[in-house]
Amino acid sequence: MSEEDDEHGCVIALDVGGTGMKGALLGRDRGPLAELRRPTPGAAGPDAVVDAITAIVGTLAEEAAARGLRVHRAGVVVPGVVSEELRTAVHSANLGWRGLPLAALLEARTGLPVTLGHDVRAGGAAECLLGAARGARDVLFVAIGTGIAAVVVCDGRPVRADGYAGELGHVVVEPGGARCACGGRGCLETVASASAIATAFTERSGRRTAGAADVAVRVQQGDSHARAAWDRAADALATALATVTTLLAPELIVLGGGLAEAGGVLLDPVRDRLAARLTFQRRPRLVQAELGDRAGCLGAGLAAWHDTDHATAADSARTGRTGAWYR
Amino acid sequence: MSEEDDEHGCVIALDVGGTGMKGALLGRDRGPLAELRRPTPGAAGPDAVVDAITAIVGTLAEEAAARGLRVHRAGVVVPGVVSEELRTAVHSANLGWRGLPLAALLEARTGLPVTLGHDVRAGGAAECLLGAARGARDVLFVAIGTGIAAVVVCDGRPVRADGYAGELGHVVVEPGGARCACGGRGCLETVASASAIATAFTERSGRRTAGAADVAVRVQQGDSHARAAWDRAADALATALATVTTLLAPELIVLGGGLAEAGGVLLDPVRDRLAARLTFQRRPRLVQAELGDRAGCLGAGLAAWHDTDHATAADSARTGRTGAWYR
Repeated sequence: MSEEDDEHGCVIALDVGGTGMKGALLGRDRGPLAELRRPTPGAAGPDAVVDAITAIVGTLAEEAAARGLRVHRAGVVVPGVVSEELRTAVHSANLGWRGLPLAALLEARTGLPVTLGHDVRAGGAAECLLGAARGARDVLFVAIGTGIAAVVVCDGRPVRADGYAGELGHVVVEPGGARCACGGRGCLETVASASAIATAFTERSGRRTAGAADVAVRVQQGDSHARAAWDRAADALATALATVTTLLAPELIVLGGGLAEAGGVLLDPVRDRLAARLTFQRRPRLVQAELGDRAGCLGAGLAAWHDTDHATAADSARTGRTGAWYR
Repeated sequence: MSEEDDEHGCVIALDVGGTGMKGALLGRDRGPLAELRRPTPGAAGPDAVVDAITAIVGTLAEEAAARGLRVHRAGVVVPGVVSEELRTAVHSANLGWRGLPLAALLEARTGLPVTLGHDVRAGGAAECLLGAARGARDVLFVAIGTGIAAVVVCDGRPVRADGYAGELGHVVVEPGGARCACGGRGCLETVASASAIATAFTERSGRRTAGAADVAVRVQQGDSHARAAWDRAADALATALATVTTLLAPELIVLGGGLAEAGGVLLDPVRDRLAARLTFQRRPRLVQAELGDRAGCLGAGLAAWHDTDHATAADSARTGRTGAWYR
């Protein structure tokens, strides 16, 4: 179909998180035509999550029909280890999946062609194509929330390694440190994730907190316990980012995820500490993500549009995305 | 020229190291037709090194002429920060170069087209195309000698980042540790390079050593000082390799450079310690390089043959090698 014939075409974009799902209809100009959020029923088990995904895709398809829009394809991104090539959720601790052929399953249930992706890589794609990393070739995109994950982009291409790359949250920054859920000790996540910061504040102060965003407010108010937890996280992030810089020399590091919404309260100390750790290395710019919590959903839509435009009916989503981003 | 017409064609391949230069004539089948080694006159200053390179290229060109071979091109690889695209030795602490347009300089002096490359990336290319990493797509090649450097290969493509990538030797493995030549503290090189191992042995034992190879022999003889220095190096290597595995998930790690010639004495403890540090990550195979100290020279020849076959006269070596290896 030519692009001119397609003013009534759209794709369904869905970002499945550990606690919530963000869905949208995206037109050819990548603008959202409708948005929908629902909780992820993670506690109800892995099958319930697949049912919930099927339901939200169905609701979005009805919304499209009501607007007279043709749905070309659904793009669905999920957390954990994901193989885009095999169209499989290889492993997701939060959602309880292991070796789940999710794309094929959703195609059978919804009747739509489905492109499966990884939530953080999709968010990184969106930031590279539409957000803070537009035009950059060598990029590290870091999503900091309950956990920490990253996308490594080298020469304009995301590093996938069959879905195993980018586990920045499990780089050891405090050898022999706190036990991590992964089984290791002193992983970056145990110090610098939003949840780790909130926990550290409570342990130091004996006070409860609504979360890392609240700790960030207390940092600005001069709370010494908040400052100590925050500085330790900034130190740990700078240590991990210095290692990435030494190995891969990104020109740009983009901090995203919920914690990055603290803005300069996070970016300024991380930037200073990173600069102090570098000697001969090329110094990356460190900036805040632009697309906020919609990056993953937008990335899901970009992938679906890519496959709509490039995949043939015969080989579906298997081709075309092993190399560069979705363009 | 068709390949059939080229049985009398060759390229000059040259690996310029901090202490010695390895040169060769390579035929179309990538087999060496002649080899030549000379010292690098590093102490005589940066100009003397350029003169020495010019001289050895000239000698190899004469050797080719004497054999009735036509020299298509010279491939020259050097250490430090090298930009293949800009054909420039951006920075080499050992050889005293900074921003040197070495390819153009050598072309003017020798009358031959010249392809400039980076010694460790060239060695990695040779191992990927002809050696231990044949057929692998996601690879880390580590060269351990006086210093430590690496090539990161993702999806069959080397990560260059304008020549700044791969500085594994400056990943911090002992925070607050010994001062490194780069200005940092506790870099991998300060613990696990061949020179660091020899120095550590001497400091512990009060005895002199001919170098890390000698320390390896003493390890096998049960010397406790040698064992302590060696184990600390293996720990440090495993720490750095675990970080790379977490970030990039290579399927294969190839250890090369002089230290890797210790074989199992090095690989076995590093393999065990790396396995102990991994939890959920994909486990890479760890193997010894196959091409020994000729990898860099072979890689220089592969690059020269690539440019002979693919570059047009007009755009010389600037094109064709920003993506995959030399094929």
